Amino acid sequence: MELDPVVTNPGLYRVVFENERVRVLRYHDVPGDRTAPHTHPDSVMITLGSFRRRLSSAGRERDVEMVTDTVAWLPQQEHAGHNIGDTPTDVLFVELKEAPAHPPSTGAVGPVGN
Amino acid sequence: MELDPVVTNPGLYRVVFENERVRVLRYHDVPGDRTAPHTHPDSVMITLGSFRRRLSSAGRERDVEMVTDTVAWLPQQEHAGHNIGDTPTDVLFVELKEAPAHPPSTGAVGPVGN
Repeated sequence: MELDPVVTNPGLYRVVFENERVRVLRYHDVPGDRTAPHTHPDSVMITLGSFRRRLSSAGRERDVEMVTDTVAWLPQQEHAGHNIGDTPTDVLFVELKEAPAHPPSTGAVGPVGN
Repeated sequence: MELDPVVTNPGLYRVVFENERVRVLRYHDVPGDRTAPHTHPDSVMITLGSFRRRLSSAGRERDVEMVTDTVAWLPQQEHAGHNIGDTPTDVLFVELKEAPAHPPSTGAVGPVGN
């Protein structure tokens, strides 16, 4: 992985499970925190709380608001995040280690369908 | 999938997300509930509460006790479950749709390393 978030932001991301097929990260921050640019492979996101974030990727910005207990898809991407809300962000990422059979043709910023 | 739990126990399992790479199920039951035999592909389990269950597979039984907020690996298997505790069971299953590169050689009953 090019910019592993566990390396770029070890205080915010930690590995809670890993085997040959998946790696599961737990992310926790507080309002105002920012991440350095990092990459995610295709991942399932599970929100453990509600939050509001500004994501930036290749000069584009997108504000994302998610409620607790949401299951969403994060297609592979590089981005940086900024907690612009007034609550912590708590998220699990189930990362798929295998390469996708059909990589997305366009770059996404943040989760899909949210 | 041979015995899809959403088909065998539609009152207990429901699909909360699906795309071409994963399907995410939410399981909820109450003490005393039992599932019919069903199959899981390789899956990440995330417990949303603490519970105690008796799993049975091919004549073998195994009691499993898990605490809330646990991330575990459920290798592909067929089993039936029985809530033998005094709390509901609430679990998310992130099912991997792609076949494993190295299928396990022995049959597991329940999560690994738990």
